[in-house]
Amino acid sequence: MKTRAAVAFEAKKPLEIVEVDLEGPKAGEVMVEIKATGVCHTDAYTLDGFDSEGIFPSILGHEGAGVVVEVGAGVTSVAVGDHVIPLYTPECRQCKSCLSGKTNLCTAIRATQGKGLMPDGTSRFSYKGQPIYHYMGCSTFSNYTVLPEIAVAKIRRDAPFKTACYCGCGVTTGVGAVTNTAKVEPGANAIVFGLGGIGLNVIQGLKLVGANMIVGVDINPDREEWGRKFGMTHFVNPKDVQGDLVAHLVALTDGGADYTFDATGNTGVMRTALEACHRGWGESIIIGVAEAGKEISTRPFQLVTGRVWKGTAFGGARGRTDTPKIVDWYMDGKIQIDPMITHVLPLEEINKAFDLMHAGESIRTVVTF
Amino acid sequence: MKTRAAVAFEAKKPLEIVEVDLEGPKAGEVMVEIKATGVCHTDAYTLDGFDSEGIFPSILGHEGAGVVVEVGAGVTSVAVGDHVIPLYTPECRQCKSCLSGKTNLCTAIRATQGKGLMPDGTSRFSYKGQPIYHYMGCSTFSNYTVLPEIAVAKIRRDAPFKTACYCGCGVTTGVGAVTNTAKVEPGANAIVFGLGGIGLNVIQGLKLVGANMIVGVDINPDREEWGRKFGMTHFVNPKDVQGDLVAHLVALTDGGADYTFDATGNTGVMRTALEACHRGWGESIIIGVAEAGKEISTRPFQLVTGRVWKGTAFGGARGRTDTPKIVDWYMDGKIQIDPMITHVLPLEEINKAFDLMHAGESIRTVVTF
Repeated sequence: MKTRAAVAFEAKKPLEIVEVDLEGPKAGEVMVEIKATGVCHTDAYTLDGFDSEGIFPSILGHEGAGVVVEVGAGVTSVAVGDHVIPLYTPECRQCKSCLSGKTNLCTAIRATQGKGLMPDGTSRFSYKGQPIYHYMGCSTFSNYTVLPEIAVAKIRRDAPFKTACYCGCGVTTGVGAVTNTAKVEPGANAIVFGLGGIGLNVIQGLKLVGANMIVGVDINPDREEWGRKFGMTHFVNPKDVQGDLVAHLVALTDGGADYTFDATGNTGVMRTALEACHRGWGESIIIGVAEAGKEISTRPFQLVTGRVWKGTAFGGARGRTDTPKIVDWYMDGKIQIDPMITHVLPLEEINKAFDLMHAGESIRTVVTF
Repeated sequence: MKTRAAVAFEAKKPLEIVEVDLEGPKAGEVMVEIKATGVCHTDAYTLDGFDSEGIFPSILGHEGAGVVVEVGAGVTSVAVGDHVIPLYTPECRQCKSCLSGKTNLCTAIRATQGKGLMPDGTSRFSYKGQPIYHYMGCSTFSNYTVLPEIAVAKIRRDAPFKTACYCGCGVTTGVGAVTNTAKVEPGANAIVFGLGGIGLNVIQGLKLVGANMIVGVDINPDREEWGRKFGMTHFVNPKDVQGDLVAHLVALTDGGADYTFDATGNTGVMRTALEACHRGWGESIIIGVAEAGKEISTRPFQLVTGRVWKGTAFGGARGRTDTPKIVDWYMDGKIQIDPMITHVLPLEEINKAFDLMHAGESIRTVVTF
């Protein structure tokens, strides 16, 4: 069949809206009609050529929501008509990682997904007879896409696609970093570095679990208002701090934070986040994706005196098990999504979503089909 | 009163055995007759001038065992005749750290202890009218010493001083890193870097909790026999490994270890230890004390994909609560100490203990009075 898609023919070039060919789902696969997709920094990171493993031509996008329109042989967990969110972190429930109960990083299809292919080693997309690669196992910048059954999360039908799609990456990553990875307890003090989409979702995750101080740190003063909207109790602009930022944050939190979160991707900020943790027990969670080749550093004394350095991917959420719960929390009013969707554009204007992001004008732009 | 002590008059000079003056215990303090003391790398680190916070003249030693001979006003938790282990990590049970239930790093007397003084800001030791400083709040290289009540752990009376003293640092640090900090579960795979006294105690801690693979890593081939004595199941000498050590260890442990421990103090080894952890959940625990100014580094991707970087001090043991349990485990045969005490010397020969350590000939030398 044919489907409209925004294709990244090469790095550092705008996406092109074209009609591509899409093969139907093979055994264990499903075809999904994407109704809405967020445009995330990770898409931009790949499009801008920073991802050394980026493959072109490909169809980007990994934060979608849609409806199952066809299922391949042997598919049992979803049916035609189900509303689903594509998962760049699948959940096979069979591999060593899934069975460990200690991580969400399912390894069942990692090798092929990393190569832009379906588990059988081929692509379902093509254009003028040439294969177009999948991206993060999702390719939600296409009106129709094919995914492995283990890479879709079934969600409730009353959730609007335009907002639920954000649970496919940003919301789950931020909220899950709090609830799954850090397991923040009520009354804890926390600091969030970087108040973009991820950081704001960390903030509302902290509010959800009853954190006490929720300190937001950003060099953009406009983000103070955004942070307070989702539960931030204190704002620190490093540009306004005299002297050492770590010392300032440690004093503000009476000895350091119980939990800190880096949502900037800057390795210098990651160090600050660790060192602003409380001696004896403070935990720092890295969420942001750093530039290729950059490293984090600290004195080992920081860890020997009880600080813990961790990271999180997709908020530690098991894709099929936990993503539907995040959608439920949204529908139940426990967390907000609507105010974060600052822009909605048709597929034809998808390149504008990247411009808005680079200009810092959007929290999240959603593209609809 | 007078007491015999080995005094460090200045850095990089042998200790001198002299008679020093010792004031009796003030309120909340106890006097302990030290019966035996281990000589630890940390003593050597300070004596050799590597510790930028080292203070001289002082009486080193922090791994002792002895008997309470006098108590100051208000002391209720120990009495004359009690057998005790001095604690460089006290346990006041009143401060924010103790009450957190999340750390053993009591802060009640940290400020004065770091300055070589008792909590009232003075020293109990003097020589020819000049004050001699305390060390790590213990100064076990003196036949008699004075300690805050909160810095002694009462132990059973049938435990031999000569071996129980090792619970004042090395045994508790190594075993506790496994049981308190990492909380290793039965069946886990672990790698221990550095098979000196601490590393061997990590190994026997791993055996105690029922770990599966216990891999020891050391560049000294003689340490293989030592490791196997305490439960090591596999030995890796990095000098014999072709290619990348991390890749070798990851292959050996089927994807990486569930837990790794650095007992070397080398920041390069600390990185190897982290990166040899299993993707998704492996935890690396830093035990070794690094040289001043040295830093640890890694790519943040290592943490984002689920590895956790931690440290431990005194094995995460709450001094008064947990140290007596370690002594019980020894007396019950759950852990061994006797084979690790390779040398016993009288106080007069204490400098030989440092020589044996530097030559790598001893696992632990104990000095008796």
